Amino acid sequence: MKIRVGFGFDVHALVSERELWLGGIKLEHEKGLLGHSDADVLLHAVCDALLGAANMRDIGFHFPDNAGEYKNIDSKILLARTMELIRSKGYELGNIDATVCAERPKLNPHIPAMKKAMAAVMNVDEDDISIKATTTEKLGFTGREEGISAYATVLITKE
Amino acid sequence: MKIRVGFGFDVHALVSERELWLGGIKLEHEKGLLGHSDADVLLHAVCDALLGAANMRDIGFHFPDNAGEYKNIDSKILLARTMELIRSKGYELGNIDATVCAERPKLNPHIPAMKKAMAAVMNVDEDDISIKATTTEKLGFTGREEGISAYATVLITKE
Amino acid sequence: MKIRVGFGFDVHALVSERELWLGGIKLEHEKGLLGHSDADVLLHAVCDALLGAANMRDIGFHFPDNAGEYKNIDSKILLARTMELIRSKGYELGNIDATVCAERPKLNPHIPAMKKAMAAVMNVDEDDISIKATTTEKLGFTGREEGISAYATVLITKE
Repeated sequence: MKIRVGFGFDVHALVSERELWLGGIKLEHEKGLLGHSDADVLLHAVCDALLGAANMRDIGFHFPDNAGEYKNIDSKILLARTMELIRSKGYELGNIDATVCAERPKLNPHIPAMKKAMAAVMNVDEDDISIKATTTEKLGFTGREEGISAYATVLITKE
Repeated sequence: MKIRVGFGFDVHALVSERELWLGGIKLEHEKGLLGHSDADVLLHAVCDALLGAANMRDIGFHFPDNAGEYKNIDSKILLARTMELIRSKGYELGNIDATVCAERPKLNPHIPAMKKAMAAVMNVDEDDISIKATTTEKLGFTGREEGISAYATVLITKE
Repeated sequence: MKIRVGFGFDVHALVSERELWLGGIKLEHEKGLLGHSDADVLLHAVCDALLGAANMRDIGFHFPDNAGEYKNIDSKILLARTMELIRSKGYELGNIDATVCAERPKLNPHIPAMKKAMAAVMNVDEDDISIKATTTEKLGFTGREEGISAYATVLITKE
């Protein structure tokens, strides 16, 4: 069995008058993430980690942010297409471990729902998706609530 | 053999009148890290990476920072409990590779002692624990010495 | 077969009157990265990830930034020496997945050339080197174009 690792990192800015989508679900918050798609920074980091592990470039390469078809798109669609891409090369998910850095809102109560949403879209076992949340203790741009960042590491396998 | 990867990231603020604990040892420095526990940012990143790899939530979930029992606790105790948690699911450590971002103090001379302290607490081979140090070239909150951050990646296995 | 993971993170400041080297190639830009060597932040993150995976300390340990022999050195030489170091312990590359955070210049058109340069120096297959580029949406020091950061995750194997 061939095993490969991948890593993704993504950042989006927090602004007024946008919905906040994270991990495939909508959260109640007074700000949302700015982007061409729904700006789900967690799903974007996961897509990048998967594409990187399979050496298939990155999310901007496959889903360009100047393409009309991706305007305000639900990032779960991008995640589903990413899984199709890596499966087309014979890869399957081993596991994902992701970390979201956000000062607010509190994400821990929503993590089971995010895992469920992601597992359904990816057609994988929930036990293979881990999501963690942390603050940066009011430091840096995430600490000042100017944006939210996400890291994801993945392992993929090929028989 | 089942193999999984995990990734942890943590940040704590540097303040006066706190001791500086990193990698399970106390360092001489004019500031220390602020937190509910001893704020050992390196051990926290490692705990999060281990828990994430095993899909067992994160350090805040198991050791809440509003619980009196964890006030000023030695993070080596949290690391020992984290190893118990992942071993209870049948996992064993493959290897850890961690990186600490701090402008000061110089960490390189202390890395062998950190590895020794961690290996003893985790009951693993020192050769399976790598710790690296870097600055962020005076950029960002770590560069301004407002805080210290740590990244950890881990591989765990199950027979 | 023994499998280990590694992770590297590096930052260099952007300044005038320096050349911009990234992924082993020179890019046209009005600024370059400051450092003792050519300051190729991507190659440094990769070296650190490889050394960390093999538990052989870090780039600063092997190639100190106060040593005259490394002044303005081409970081491809450091990468070649890093591969010698990990091979001397019996390790071979599984795969690399790296991410560069830079607001400008646009890196995507140059990624194939970077992969080619790195594969040649490392004596590995291009398919085992993934490089991704992202911005931080004008946030933080990379967003303000004060510096460029790079993350790299690697998998190494030993028979």
